[in-house]
Amino acid sequence: MGIFSKNIQTLDDLFVHQLQDIYYAEKQIVKNLPSMIDKTSNINLKQGLASHLEQTKGHVTRLEKVFQQHGAEIRAVDCPAIDGILEEADEVVGDSAGPDVVDAAIAAAAQAVEHYEIVRYGTLVAWANQLGRPDCAALLQQTLEEEKAADKALTQVAQGELNRQAA
Amino acid sequence: MGIFSKNIQTLDDLFVHQLQDIYYAEKQIVKNLPSMIDKTSNINLKQGLASHLEQTKGHVTRLEKVFQQHGAEIRAVDCPAIDGILEEADEVVGDSAGPDVVDAAIAAAAQAVEHYEIVRYGTLVAWANQLGRPDCAALLQQTLEEEKAADKALTQVAQGELNRQAA
Repeated sequence: MGIFSKNIQTLDDLFVHQLQDIYYAEKQIVKNLPSMIDKTSNINLKQGLASHLEQTKGHVTRLEKVFQQHGAEIRAVDCPAIDGILEEADEVVGDSAGPDVVDAAIAAAAQAVEHYEIVRYGTLVAWANQLGRPDCAALLQQTLEEEKAADKALTQVAQGELNRQAA
Repeated sequence: MGIFSKNIQTLDDLFVHQLQDIYYAEKQIVKNLPSMIDKTSNINLKQGLASHLEQTKGHVTRLEKVFQQHGAEIRAVDCPAIDGILEEADEVVGDSAGPDVVDAAIAAAAQAVEHYEIVRYGTLVAWANQLGRPDCAALLQQTLEEEKAADKALTQVAQGELNRQAA
């Protein structure tokens, strides 16, 4: 394949591709979180995931603003990474028995999702700054902070009660 | 499916399953890193990934020690998450043109891999402690620290030169 048949020629192309990737990922998370919430027994975990679902809907809207600021078409591309993470979550939770073990598995799966988002938003913020787009960087940074806070909250619930109950 | 047809009945089962998952993941990373290293132009990134490849081989061996300490069979289970992350890395890097853009894509992909490992080892350490296995926790913690250091080094290379060159 020659160089001109490749779609990503510049850092700006890479930035837009990564935006499309995380846009798909956020939408998949919105689709998948309700079934995770249904399977959760621990009330703190259930409430935490439910409030994160609302936050995630806001992340989708915020990404649409970033596309608009940038002047790129609002578009999702397949993201095999989030598909794999969610598929694995589904398998492990489905193979777990008893509410306490299921809750521990769900919290771990949710943290894997958060970390995927944390790393991608971290990269996007760095690239937006490099590209001289502090307006895009500022919006992406807001989501990054919310993902980090969600991960921290999950750690607290997991280590505070879930793992103890499951042990 | 009834409760007794499920394979993960206890937190200990979940811990062993997660060990098998990250064991598969580490082995896939060992398989995939050489082609990423080949495609890298920046010498600091190339050296960083090469030394991380050696470190990753050590993580495989260390996991085998954890299986032995625990008394569980050394075994890998499919990990759709790492498969998805590596598939996506391959796609994005393959669709990128020009050494600087390719390097930026590789560094971002490597960070996504690191973050997957960081979140899984973090969970494994917490579960090992909860299960009263500080011996397993100590070994897993060593790898966790190395993954965090690798991620930090990638951030430094990316923000220090790669993204600037690609912009």
